[in-house]
Parts: sequence; structure tokens; C-alpha cells
Amino acid sequence: MGSLYVALIHYPVYDKNHDVVTSAVTNIDVHDIARSCCTYGVAGFYVVTPVDALRALVRRIMHHWADGDGHDYNPTRSEALALVHLEASLEGVEIDIEARHGRLPLLVSTSARSHQTGADAATVPITYDDLRARLDGATGAGDGESADQPWLLLLGTGWGLTEEVLDRCRYALGPLRGPSAYNHLSVRAAAAIILDRLRCPR
Amino acid sequence: MGSLYVALIHYPVYDKNHDVVTSAVTNIDVHDIARSCCTYGVAGFYVVTPVDALRALVRRIMHHWADGDGHDYNPTRSEALALVHLEASLEGVEIDIEARHGRLPLLVSTSARSHQTGADAATVPITYDDLRARLDGATGAGDGESADQPWLLLLGTGWGLTEEVLDRCRYALGPLRGPSAYNHLSVRAAAAIILDRLRCPR
Repeated sequence: MGSLYVALIHYPVYDKNHDVVTSAVTNIDVHDIARSCCTYGVAGFYVVTPVDALRALVRRIMHHWADGDGHDYNPTRSEALALVHLEASLEGVEIDIEARHGRLPLLVSTSARSHQTGADAATVPITYDDLRARLDGATGAGDGESADQPWLLLLGTGWGLTEEVLDRCRYALGPLRGPSAYNHLSVRAAAAIILDRLRCPR
Repeated sequence: MGSLYVALIHYPVYDKNHDVVTSAVTNIDVHDIARSCCTYGVAGFYVVTPVDALRALVRRIMHHWADGDGHDYNPTRSEALALVHLEASLEGVEIDIEARHGRLPLLVSTSARSHQTGADAATVPITYDDLRARLDGATGAGDGESADQPWLLLLGTGWGLTEEVLDRCRYALGPLRGPSAYNHLSVRAAAAIILDRLRCPR
């Protein structure tokens, strides 16, 4: 099975006015997504923010659950938080994964909006089932991709990943849709559903 | 399609020592699960706690997003929170649904543990696919069930629903499992995955 990583991006993302901003790190995002990653066999979960103080805050929370009274209270949290890495930028995540695997990860974007790619765009839409098969090694690798390819799934915060980040991705997963027109899931809920679709045993 | 309701139970649930307790209402549970319910066409989301002050707190938060500055800031939250109902007990939820549909809902339990039912137990295990088919009306109704049957999915907080509540349910969904042995999803993540499995368009 290919190694799957997840990155939660706090910059660059849009705010409600479509301005590019740095969103605040939400404590519960780190906990919830780490637990979902741990359940679904994700190799590492990167929390990405350029704000030094916010990375330090997350490090302190991780330390609380790993070693302190938190570990005694609920040891299952430290197991999940052991998956968490802190990086200042997406580039830092890519370099870290390259150091582990000897090759850069393939980037996969997620978005609540359909990403419009131009005819000359390098980003290809991919379905959940197709990405699942690729991760399982059930279907062949594309150009310049290997069977033991690391994959990096990008999750946006705020009002979502910027076009610039979406355009950098090789593949784009479509929005999660239910039977209703409403599509404003929390990033925590979206991460859980995406990982279940890609990794639940069948 | 059968009407599906969701109830988030704060009493009776277990704590980490397997004592029966009333858990605190977590603000983010209400928001996240309401948004997931709205996405997946759930007819109503009940937050169940016997603590008057906690029901009053949730009511105040709902009011903030429905009418106040919150609505101007993010109108999608009020749309989701319109699904939320407050009840003091599971029995209150059943009575409310009976008042809407003219019949009591069929109860479906969820649990991170496998529920051991005795030979004479009234609770039947059901798979996600089978429940999905039942909700779609694709398979026939059981004894004493009708095609327009309302369904009520129970979510536990704390360390899970008590045996007493599990035994009251007609059907029991199995634990969500990924490829790893770890199964400590947040109730927010579990709710999102369960609704996606039962209701995502295929």
C-alpha cells in the first residue's frame, strides 16, 4: 500500500472575502484529524502554519498528551498525536517526505468547490475510487510515478486552499456532496469522510 | 427515502471507568454534526442532555448563529443549526418524532465496541450497506415496520452509550474500523463517516 500523508494548510488559504490569509490553528482540528489519520493508517499528519507561536502552541499540546497528565488520563490521544509533524510551509512538508522516501510526494488537493482546470493545466481530476485503487497499488503508476510513491493529501482551512496551491497539485479530488445542496462540512468531518472513502477495508 | 434522525446522547453514557455519567455538551459537536446532518439530508438532529443549563447554553449558541451577528458573519451555520432540537431524554426524542410522523422511530445504535447481544436479545446487527438499502426503501420492511418508517441513529459521547441504551435499539451498526487496530475516532468524525456511508449519492 502506498504511503499516504495528510497536510492541514493554514497558509495560503482564502478568508470569506476571498482574500489570501493565514488562518489560526484550531486545537480540535489537530486532535480530530490525528485520530482519523491514526484509524486509517496515514503515515504522517502535517500541521502547516508559518506562525512560530502557533507551531509552539501545538507542540505544547502534543507534549501534554504525550508525557504529562494527559497521557495518564487518555493514552489513546498520545498514540494519535505521535503522527503529527509541524511545518512552516507546504514546501517544508514536501522536503520532509522526500527525506523519508527518497522522492517527492504526489500532491492531491481537496476542495468544497469544483476546481476549474484550464486545458493546459497540470492538475487532473481523480475520483475517490480511482485514488483508492492507486493507493492500493491495484492500478498502474502514471508518468514519472512509482509503485511505492508517497502521496500527500492537502486539506484547506478558512474558506479553502488558494488557486495557487490547487494548481500545484497533480490530482484533484472532487467536493464531498450528500443528497442536499448544502456543502459546508467542517474540515474535521471532511477529513474523516475522505480517509474512510480511501482507506476503509472492503 | 425514509426520514433519518440523529441523536447525540449525553446521558446515560459511560466514563473512562465504565461508570454511568452525564457528559458535558461540547459546542463543536453541535456545530460539526449539524453541518454533517445538513449535508446528508438528515431530517433532524437532537442534542440530548438532562441538564437544563446545558440545553439553555446550546439554545443561546443557536440563537447567536440564527439571528445575531453570527448570521451575518456566516449564514451557512444557521442553515445547519436549524436542524437542531434539544431534548432532556431519549424518550423525549422518540415522542417528538412520533408527533411528527405518527409512529415511533426505529432505533439504530452506533458504538466503537462490538455489542454482544444474547440469544434472546431484541437487537439485530446490521451492516452499513443493509441500513442504506433500508433507508432508500430498496429492501422490504421488517415485522411491524413500514416503508415510511422514521429512523433514529444514536451517537454516544464520553466513553459510549450504555448497555441499557444499546439493548433498547432494534438495530446495531458495527464499529468503524480502518486498516489499523486504532479505533478512537471523535464522535464528530464518526458521525460524518456514518452519514456518508448511509447517504452519499452513488
